[in-house]
Amino acid sequence: MDRNVLNPPHRLLMGPGPSNPDPRVTAALGLPMIGHLDPYFLEVMEATMDDLRRLFRTTNHHTIPMSGTGTSGLETIAVNLLEPGDEVIVGVIGYFGQRLAEICRRQGAVVREIEAPLGEVIDPDRIAKALDEKPATLVYLVHAETSTGAAQPLEDIGKIVRAHDALLAVDCVTSLGGMPLEVDGWLIDAAGSCSQKCIGAPPGSGPITVGPRAMAKVAARKTKPHSWYFDLQLLFKYWGEGGGGSRAFHHTAPVANIYAFREALRLIHAEGLEARWERHRAAHERFAAGLARLGLELFTPAAHRLPMLNVITIPDGVDDATVRKRLLNELNIEISGGFGPLAGKTWRVGLMGANAAAEPIDRLLAGLGEVLGT
Amino acid sequence: MDRNVLNPPHRLLMGPGPSNPDPRVTAALGLPMIGHLDPYFLEVMEATMDDLRRLFRTTNHHTIPMSGTGTSGLETIAVNLLEPGDEVIVGVIGYFGQRLAEICRRQGAVVREIEAPLGEVIDPDRIAKALDEKPATLVYLVHAETSTGAAQPLEDIGKIVRAHDALLAVDCVTSLGGMPLEVDGWLIDAAGSCSQKCIGAPPGSGPITVGPRAMAKVAARKTKPHSWYFDLQLLFKYWGEGGGGSRAFHHTAPVANIYAFREALRLIHAEGLEARWERHRAAHERFAAGLARLGLELFTPAAHRLPMLNVITIPDGVDDATVRKRLLNELNIEISGGFGPLAGKTWRVGLMGANAAAEPIDRLLAGLGEVLGT
Repeated sequence: MDRNVLNPPHRLLMGPGPSNPDPRVTAALGLPMIGHLDPYFLEVMEATMDDLRRLFRTTNHHTIPMSGTGTSGLETIAVNLLEPGDEVIVGVIGYFGQRLAEICRRQGAVVREIEAPLGEVIDPDRIAKALDEKPATLVYLVHAETSTGAAQPLEDIGKIVRAHDALLAVDCVTSLGGMPLEVDGWLIDAAGSCSQKCIGAPPGSGPITVGPRAMAKVAARKTKPHSWYFDLQLLFKYWGEGGGGSRAFHHTAPVANIYAFREALRLIHAEGLEARWERHRAAHERFAAGLARLGLELFTPAAHRLPMLNVITIPDGVDDATVRKRLLNELNIEISGGFGPLAGKTWRVGLMGANAAAEPIDRLLAGLGEVLGT
Repeated sequence: MDRNVLNPPHRLLMGPGPSNPDPRVTAALGLPMIGHLDPYFLEVMEATMDDLRRLFRTTNHHTIPMSGTGTSGLETIAVNLLEPGDEVIVGVIGYFGQRLAEICRRQGAVVREIEAPLGEVIDPDRIAKALDEKPATLVYLVHAETSTGAAQPLEDIGKIVRAHDALLAVDCVTSLGGMPLEVDGWLIDAAGSCSQKCIGAPPGSGPITVGPRAMAKVAARKTKPHSWYFDLQLLFKYWGEGGGGSRAFHHTAPVANIYAFREALRLIHAEGLEARWERHRAAHERFAAGLARLGLELFTPAAHRLPMLNVITIPDGVDDATVRKRLLNELNIEISGGFGPLAGKTWRVGLMGANAAAEPIDRLLAGLGEVLGT
């Protein structure tokens, strides 16, 4: 490229995120810059919190976009809910579960991992058993494992965790906005997602929600969190402890990102959250049917396939990198390779946000057919 | 506001940041979204690193915008350079020094603070003496203290710190791009800034540079950093360990923020860094002369006043909040109140990036004259 002039290509983003934002979301990035303590911006923050609560299906006051990417929100949950020596049970059904375990270990917590084979999910009974054997402060699970395409059922786990007086936290980076997630209904105490997948905003915001049981643990900490930037008690001096009131400086909020994030939330609720879930489900059906016509198979067992993240088994004799490069360079379509042990054996296709729709799916299917010669 | 439609006011941002971005920077936010591992984006990353090195005046390979605000970069330095039990000397000449000390304490480090009265700076001899009394791993100083308007001289400190086999880190959040800072020339081992002040990009990037002596300490750590998100060794598997090569996923980079940040860097180097420093200096002169005409005085002693952050003593009988509210609501001009012990007694005026220029300064001076009735 001419290094002096930015001129990015127009890609159809069918990988695991970012997805292509709606043009109205992109336009919001360019709205007039204002101060992070401007009275108008405080209203934007309040409206963002309200709409984010509706997206998480929660009444939790402590619901904000963190000033970082999705990973920063997941780390914020661990940083605040765990103290050195605390026991935590982490569900590991792929790379993103391993990452959660490592993030928890960095806080000095004692991590017990419950694993499932790639593509599979964890039976709630195993969590009950682990909590019976030894209490834990926290159970931290991945809802939608982006490396395997598996959806971890959560509906029944909250009751188990609460009966054992533990907290339940969830990584819903890939699921939020694209499939059912009920933070209050499923007794989830904390959840973290990202902005650039099913929400359809640019990367750079880490939406989290933290419920009253989790905030009670935060208030009862004997030690300060290892992070100042991610300290929830300090953050909510800026975001407000309910009902407006004074706002203390913590850090300078990423104003443009919050404009875009807020506009993406507006579009989600204008569509209707349940309609959006259904759109992602229908997109998956359309894509899966198209894959079958091409003779391609999904890696993840049908019983717990994610709608928005499709892991495809690469047929024998087909070279992973060649296909992805041709899609990108000849057709401007991005899909992603496999992760970890699935690298070279699978592709990962995202049907997220605006791209969970017939036109982008048909364009990708046509492209795959062309490149594979089928 | 109508909570469904974003319609922010057009403010002249003369507080301590964000400043108003150049329209070309704002436009860059809206360029086509691409993947964070797209070959084109990898080129953008390389170009951003190159231009950021020129801004920091360094050859340090490890020079990137962190995926968070300026505070995240300052925390990244502490997280990676400090292990539990390490001794660190922090220069405290105002609120932002106190904050650095707290960030270091969160890492389990033993913090020794060297303080100066508000408005004053630290004599390098005091740092030499503190290092003579007891060795330290790190000396962490604030270059431009945004709460008092004071510029900490740094030229002579690097030699002292290096002679004591310690590392020197600098918070240059407010100074970078607006006044001389020579990372290599002044023997600074690590520095962190922000995007939204003199660089003139939106908030949401935390530019840092980390030199080879500091990276050697990182490589020699006996413990892992308390943060996974801020772990430099993991981050540079994505940003690249020199000379391209493979890129491993760490987190999804904030693509739009990096577009804007990269465009802001381009504009800085097109202007010329030294010309930009001179522009900020001249802006301060113009503003100070205008203040004198209004009968207003600067709080900070002339010997070490920052050019881009002017702390004004509020005259007796003038109400802080009333003046700021009238400027904002009637004239759409943002200035900031004082911080901590200077709240109610001072205003803080930023002359940063595009706003270090005659037209915005004259508009603010006219507004101040109108509101104060002078």
